[in-house]
Amino acid sequence: MRQNNNARILVLGGDGFCGWPTALYLSRQGYAVTIVDNFSRRLIDEELGVESLTPIESIGERLQCWWEMTGLNIELRKLDLACDYEPLVELIAETRPYAIVHFAEQRAAPYSMKSSRHKRYTVSNNINATNNLLAAVVDAGVDTHIVHLGTMGVYGYGSAGMKIPEGYLDVEIPLENGQRVSQQILYPTNPGSIYHLTKSQDQLLFAYYNKNDGVRVTDLHQGIVWGTQTAETSLDERLINRFDYDGDYGTVLNRFLMQAAIGHELTVHGTGGQTRAFIHISDTVRCIQLAIDSPPAPGERVRIMNQMTETHRVRDLAKMIADASGAKMAFVDNPRNEDAENELFVENASLCNLGLKPTFLAQGLMEEISEIAEKYAHRCNPDLIPCRSYWRTRKDLGPTQAAEAPHMRRLLERPSSLIRPDNQ
Amino acid sequence: MRQNNNARILVLGGDGFCGWPTALYLSRQGYAVTIVDNFSRRLIDEELGVESLTPIESIGERLQCWWEMTGLNIELRKLDLACDYEPLVELIAETRPYAIVHFAEQRAAPYSMKSSRHKRYTVSNNINATNNLLAAVVDAGVDTHIVHLGTMGVYGYGSAGMKIPEGYLDVEIPLENGQRVSQQILYPTNPGSIYHLTKSQDQLLFAYYNKNDGVRVTDLHQGIVWGTQTAETSLDERLINRFDYDGDYGTVLNRFLMQAAIGHELTVHGTGGQTRAFIHISDTVRCIQLAIDSPPAPGERVRIMNQMTETHRVRDLAKMIADASGAKMAFVDNPRNEDAENELFVENASLCNLGLKPTFLAQGLMEEISEIAEKYAHRCNPDLIPCRSYWRTRKDLGPTQAAEAPHMRRLLERPSSLIRPDNQ
Repeated sequence: MRQNNNARILVLGGDGFCGWPTALYLSRQGYAVTIVDNFSRRLIDEELGVESLTPIESIGERLQCWWEMTGLNIELRKLDLACDYEPLVELIAETRPYAIVHFAEQRAAPYSMKSSRHKRYTVSNNINATNNLLAAVVDAGVDTHIVHLGTMGVYGYGSAGMKIPEGYLDVEIPLENGQRVSQQILYPTNPGSIYHLTKSQDQLLFAYYNKNDGVRVTDLHQGIVWGTQTAETSLDERLINRFDYDGDYGTVLNRFLMQAAIGHELTVHGTGGQTRAFIHISDTVRCIQLAIDSPPAPGERVRIMNQMTETHRVRDLAKMIADASGAKMAFVDNPRNEDAENELFVENASLCNLGLKPTFLAQGLMEEISEIAEKYAHRCNPDLIPCRSYWRTRKDLGPTQAAEAPHMRRLLERPSSLIRPDNQ
Repeated sequence: MRQNNNARILVLGGDGFCGWPTALYLSRQGYAVTIVDNFSRRLIDEELGVESLTPIESIGERLQCWWEMTGLNIELRKLDLACDYEPLVELIAETRPYAIVHFAEQRAAPYSMKSSRHKRYTVSNNINATNNLLAAVVDAGVDTHIVHLGTMGVYGYGSAGMKIPEGYLDVEIPLENGQRVSQQILYPTNPGSIYHLTKSQDQLLFAYYNKNDGVRVTDLHQGIVWGTQTAETSLDERLINRFDYDGDYGTVLNRFLMQAAIGHELTVHGTGGQTRAFIHISDTVRCIQLAIDSPPAPGERVRIMNQMTETHRVRDLAKMIADASGAKMAFVDNPRNEDAENELFVENASLCNLGLKPTFLAQGLMEEISEIAEKYAHRCNPDLIPCRSYWRTRKDLGPTQAAEAPHMRRLLERPSSLIRPDNQ
């Protein structure tokens, strides 16, 4: 396996669910990989009192194992992207990376809605991380391509009969004189949570730095990722990827899988008529490589691609898992503030044209049931499966509670003692 | 003068250029006014080594004088909106204000572009301030109307032949089947600086909290404010408003006025073909009241109004002042990254329909020259007039320099010592 030091890739958030398998995949493809992480995802596990169903190792064990299995070295830098600006500029200036993959954001919609504190943490962390990265690339004087994980959620959930395009929408603007002007605009955003909102705000940051400073950016609007393992994380159990099944970080599919594995009913929110886009984790890591290998040309606008391979209604997902496992379905109140039913048609030609060969749910679902959900079911805490984040304040619960996680305190409770106007 | 304690108004940023005359105006109109400020604008004066041309008093002196002149009491709370969240929630819950006027953002485009540090400060300060305010209104359980100062700059500078509407744009989306769907969308944003970008990001925050939590918001997209005094700030010299003429905070008009007053050439950037929207400070404070007195109905989407009364080309402004004062014009390089010439047509029917009676430049310009620029010319430091913020890194100047102002250190240099993952 060739390791090309001219093609250094920084994977920001490289200890997380998407970041870890991406780092391994790129390493095996011959890139020189540096993981940058502040381990906030592990700290949030502590805050929530949850654990990955799969037994994930410390980052040190993971990297040691990767070296033992492949002879490949992945470097590690502990940095908080939202705070540690100067070290970030130095890292970029020293390594002059070919690409930077930016996964370093709080990425759970329910977590972002738990309380005002979680809203504030998500906005501050995500927006400062992205702005710092962009400013650092400009300050370091490099022409590095930034590959960012966006979300299908910036689109909202589609308009009647319309296929969601890849980032930009053709519109016609009627003028007063009766003529029309054709324009291509950034798809009007309609985020469904504070988390999704931050990705919409990220889009504006990318567009601005692209316009003003020529920063080259690919923004990948990803669907819900399912699956746990890739070829690389399967090499040894010490390399295993996270599997989140709790009400905050567990995706709808993972929660159904766990419910089936422990003999619980599959809890479908509302009518289960919500349609969502999906992609397998193996396809995610492949898409990142495809994006890295096809960078935008100098001067090109932000490239936006939809990173999803299929859509399903939530109740159809539940039925697939019920049929495969024998579990029963139960319809429960929906904590989210969203339409009960929606259609979703999504353009995804760009990544398919670059060579993506999708892994479909019908192919991979049985492996998720037997190799992950059932195998590790003894590690499951069933109390954690229900969603307890409400999109709107519930009068019966009182005001949303402030969480006291150290990573939030650090970000949100800053000393105000340095402000000393003369007259106060 | 009636003071109605049922109509408490919080003026966030009430010590600043727009905030101060707004607080006085609303106080005189009979509202119970509380100014909330962290005095960052005064700290930035210290950072830049500049002073308002007009001799502004401390906030304590200002409020004492207001009481002496009118018998009206304006309350003061020192808070940093980007940091001091719990005190903000308490203040809102205690006072249950009828409206909150939100001026509390870093508001100079050139300042936001001085260095990566200034970019980061502007983004972090403005986005956290707005998000904290919205979250606090939800947490406090009030239905308070937020009146926010946006900017015409979120629109970019217009499309060929099109009149810029008030916030929302009617478009038609061509479908694959040959049909068209009509939609009204938030005007596609095209901010010209990091400062303007934050106001575009604010729009997404308002739209989200309005959709999810029913927060009532009026966003006023304001043109460049000119003029210094209102009827209230003219009552006593101790109430005088700021006049900024430096290259960062001075508007184009103020810089021309100062140049004329001290016998300098009027320095026009590029061809001076940039067209901008303007409004007099007396009209600003009146517009705020009109917005407060016509709140959106419960459930109404974010109300957006354009707060400007006339447009002028920069070179025409220079000519007006040259003609009035005898100064000469000089064309110099443009430090901004913008089109050399642009047209600008703006809809402003909403505020005019609510009762705004514009003060036009042609009426007020001579007063600005004689009562402000010439009267206080002895306080002017001519070295501060030129713009020294460059929109793009200039190779001949080297990397942008990090500023070391305390308010930025506080916001940007936070301890990272609290992150202690087990395995590091």
